[in-house]
Amino acid sequence: MQYIFELFGTYFFAISGALALKGKEPDWFSATFTGFLTAIGGGSLRDVLLDSYPLVWVSDIAFIYAIVLGVLTTFIFYRFVSRLRRTLLLFDSLGIAFFTILGVEKAIHLGVRPEIAVIMGMFSGVMGGVIRDTLTNEIPIIFRKEIYATACLAGAGCYLLLDPVLDRNWNLSVSIAIIVLIRILAVVFGLSLPKLK
Amino acid sequence: MQYIFELFGTYFFAISGALALKGKEPDWFSATFTGFLTAIGGGSLRDVLLDSYPLVWVSDIAFIYAIVLGVLTTFIFYRFVSRLRRTLLLFDSLGIAFFTILGVEKAIHLGVRPEIAVIMGMFSGVMGGVIRDTLTNEIPIIFRKEIYATACLAGAGCYLLLDPVLDRNWNLSVSIAIIVLIRILAVVFGLSLPKLK
Amino acid sequence: MQYIFELFGTYFFAISGALALKGKEPDWFSATFTGFLTAIGGGSLRDVLLDSYPLVWVSDIAFIYAIVLGVLTTFIFYRFVSRLRRTLLLFDSLGIAFFTILGVEKAIHLGVRPEIAVIMGMFSGVMGGVIRDTLTNEIPIIFRKEIYATACLAGAGCYLLLDPVLDRNWNLSVSIAIIVLIRILAVVFGLSLPKLK
Repeated sequence: MQYIFELFGTYFFAISGALALKGKEPDWFSATFTGFLTAIGGGSLRDVLLDSYPLVWVSDIAFIYAIVLGVLTTFIFYRFVSRLRRTLLLFDSLGIAFFTILGVEKAIHLGVRPEIAVIMGMFSGVMGGVIRDTLTNEIPIIFRKEIYATACLAGAGCYLLLDPVLDRNWNLSVSIAIIVLIRILAVVFGLSLPKLK
Repeated sequence: MQYIFELFGTYFFAISGALALKGKEPDWFSATFTGFLTAIGGGSLRDVLLDSYPLVWVSDIAFIYAIVLGVLTTFIFYRFVSRLRRTLLLFDSLGIAFFTILGVEKAIHLGVRPEIAVIMGMFSGVMGGVIRDTLTNEIPIIFRKEIYATACLAGAGCYLLLDPVLDRNWNLSVSIAIIVLIRILAVVFGLSLPKLK
Repeated sequence: MQYIFELFGTYFFAISGALALKGKEPDWFSATFTGFLTAIGGGSLRDVLLDSYPLVWVSDIAFIYAIVLGVLTTFIFYRFVSRLRRTLLLFDSLGIAFFTILGVEKAIHLGVRPEIAVIMGMFSGVMGGVIRDTLTNEIPIIFRKEIYATACLAGAGCYLLLDPVLDRNWNLSVSIAIIVLIRILAVVFGLSLPKLK
């Protein structure tokens, strides 16, 4: 179950990453590379910071194939997919939601405190996109207007709070739904956090 | 003593990081995130490069609270602090100075050669700011006009040279003072390194 | 032999990195720092991702001296070298070729699958430049027009394919030559990969 989720998250992220260069007429390599970095960036950072080796995609080739599949999906349906902004938003929201909650779980299993696990979950969810945006000279998505990383923090916090009272699979589903919901509502209604001053 | 210094350095760095987005009307999350990255970036990079786990802020929650305190300080005194450019300069100088010298010490304790320890000290001091600037699409501070990382290299070199002749606490104080002094003099008098050609 | 190659690759990369800031009138520190990051970035990323410690340049000071030598070469021949765009291209191509193939070998020795080894080889070759470009606010070279990282992937794939039939030294030479050739032909004839749509 978790394994399937992780593969789907990887697949969604590869699509959202491969589409990231859209305005810049990417070539095949660039789109593959940004898809790859988006998909592995957050989880790799979490594992490096927590000294958890081997990295998932290094030891299990299925993740590389999930990325290749995501990139191919993008290539084949490029004209189609890149117009469906809502589909993209959904893919990206599912990606960050799956990765955040699985990141929290992994961090907890590695024995860190809940506060750190929440941070690590958020890192897993958003840092792939941050690395992608930084390399392509964009302002990272987490600094843009609508609520993004905060949705991950909220979902991660929820997961830990509900952990003692909910069955794990239910908790996974609820927390992932919370992140996807907050994120989609934020985009649809243009919700943002208060500015300083 | 070293512990207190490290917490203070973290606190100062969180303030300087939280203020980094000033011109861009940051929201609460963005300011917290840049404060956090600035505070943990340099030390985490050093520890990952030297395979020194667990990372300090992962194993000791006090560092997270020092960052939270720094960010809250910024939020509460935002209008006030962001106008005090000199105060900011002082916070940042203290941050890089503390982190550089403690980074040199940690690297030496981990058994690397002095040349590497100097580089690791400089990384600890400046790379948090470099990561922050890179993510926020600024030219990193180390590439700007006034002497910055070179002050860290000078202080780190001094610390190693004085190590055989000075008591550790004295040496800490002297080397930190050297970095802060060079940095502040560089800004006040607009000192920069010679250009190539 | 491999050791000599690695030192030369480091030296070439330090030169290409120190020249990277050319248009920006770099000072001594900036040029040294970009030379250093370009030279160690790719290999360090590979080793951190594969949990292979200590990092080469941390444990063997000869690499630091190769970098210093490269930076000094650049400083002394600055006016001269920075006009020789072809020389620069050659240096950079030799750097990425050496690093890619040695990166593949190292990854294979660490026991990863061939697909991962090819990715790690490409990372070793190009990520130093990517880190340099990202920090200096340039679009990373891998996203620019002419074939770049794809040459590394091709050379890395060749090395693995030829491994069962060719003597190692021959294979090293052939694969490195392939990367250098593809890269130089790409620049001379303006070859790029097909765009998406």
